[in-house]
Amino acid sequence: MSQFDEETGLLPLGDEQWSGHVHPSWNIGTNPNGGYLLSLVLTALGRLVPEHHDPLAITAHYLRPGCSDAPCTVEARVVRSGRNLNSVRGTLSQDNTARLAVIATFGALGEPAPAQLTIPAPSIPPPEQCVGRSGQAQGIDLPILDRLEVRLHPDDAKAGASGHARITGWVRLRDGREPDSRAAVLFADAFPPSIFSLLGPIGWVPTLEMTVHVRRRPSPGWMLGQFDTRDLANGHLVEDGLLWDAAGELVAQVRQLALVRAPG
Amino acid sequence: MSQFDEETGLLPLGDEQWSGHVHPSWNIGTNPNGGYLLSLVLTALGRLVPEHHDPLAITAHYLRPGCSDAPCTVEARVVRSGRNLNSVRGTLSQDNTARLAVIATFGALGEPAPAQLTIPAPSIPPPEQCVGRSGQAQGIDLPILDRLEVRLHPDDAKAGASGHARITGWVRLRDGREPDSRAAVLFADAFPPSIFSLLGPIGWVPTLEMTVHVRRRPSPGWMLGQFDTRDLANGHLVEDGLLWDAAGELVAQVRQLALVRAPG
Repeated sequence: MSQFDEETGLLPLGDEQWSGHVHPSWNIGTNPNGGYLLSLVLTALGRLVPEHHDPLAITAHYLRPGCSDAPCTVEARVVRSGRNLNSVRGTLSQDNTARLAVIATFGALGEPAPAQLTIPAPSIPPPEQCVGRSGQAQGIDLPILDRLEVRLHPDDAKAGASGHARITGWVRLRDGREPDSRAAVLFADAFPPSIFSLLGPIGWVPTLEMTVHVRRRPSPGWMLGQFDTRDLANGHLVEDGLLWDAAGELVAQVRQLALVRAPG
Repeated sequence: MSQFDEETGLLPLGDEQWSGHVHPSWNIGTNPNGGYLLSLVLTALGRLVPEHHDPLAITAHYLRPGCSDAPCTVEARVVRSGRNLNSVRGTLSQDNTARLAVIATFGALGEPAPAQLTIPAPSIPPPEQCVGRSGQAQGIDLPILDRLEVRLHPDDAKAGASGHARITGWVRLRDGREPDSRAAVLFADAFPPSIFSLLGPIGWVPTLEMTVHVRRRPSPGWMLGQFDTRDLANGHLVEDGLLWDAAGELVAQVRQLALVRAPG
């Protein structure tokens, strides 16, 4: 079993309630990564929908930081049940306090037809010519890099040096588990904040809200991500991200609203 | 009192529950507009947060079509209460069936500081040189045009003629009510689907999920919107929208996942 699947596993506590553990191996500094916390919730939501269904539209509002290396409970219930689409609400709590409120709509991605409109993958150097994401460069400890391998475009890897708020790079799970629609949601929050390449080391940029649209099941191999911040005002930024699979097909779009504690 | 405020009004039914009426004046064809249904929910959510707070991040998952000219109930409860940010969940139901599941995070937009990064407004002809949105051009009755005045860039107003999936234009409330952060959420779903300018009349494009980020309170006057579809696959599209106020400041970003019933 992969570390990702093991560390997002849940045990049933009762009707529509599960218990789990927030593993410190997915931390950004001392805080659990938002994509990891969301993956824990998706484990519960996935139990409530048909087995062949993928998360299609997943929204998480981050209410309070998660507690690392601590138990959690997830409550979930179906709010729409249909043949093609199922919508589920979930909440992750620790210490009886809600940390994460989620709504997700599931459906079957199935065998993809050619896209009528799509966003082509950028051309970047292969992973072995890219630069490993580093906590030192970002100014924060990154235990999560024991679980995720992230390799950045050389132009984007130097803090504050690129002249734009863009991060492009490759991502995969360290333990060799191949990507699927669940991993795509994790990868949507796996890169350094793109504002880092413009402003330099700014530490933790906590997500307030993140929505991921999964557009197809990924092929095996590395996934390619590109993240841009075009809107930073009043201490909040909106970041847009795109993820492609190894075959160059668009797998997911993501947008998040995040808090910038020290903007510049 | 404006028609918008009157027709999104709610009466308290009890603890965390309200009753309202879905007015047919906001229909797209025979279905209530998604931005209007969301505005009804925001009325309830707004009652649960401090008065000076604006919706900052609003996510709606559309579970089933609303019923026009029919009563509705809205249930809402606070999931996070803080000094700066409050998060609230809400559900709109009709005939005891949930139609719309919402999570919104509220905070004070207050007096805006200059943005550090922003997206400039496109330069388009003034409203009087633009073309009124028309149900005839779109192939569907649009009662909502009695409430909203929408004027489209002449290049985008002819179905299937533009060569791109982009709609740019102006919007305001017919009755002269000035825009605020609540109206910005309504306007986020007030334009024709941008795929219309590429594919021609395609009727109703039901929203599955919509997230709006309100970035500042708008100045009085017309608002300018630009909407793009770059991703259409497997019968679902992802549309991105931007709204600026009359002073050219970015007011909101919106993204939606929608269903295309007859894609081309």
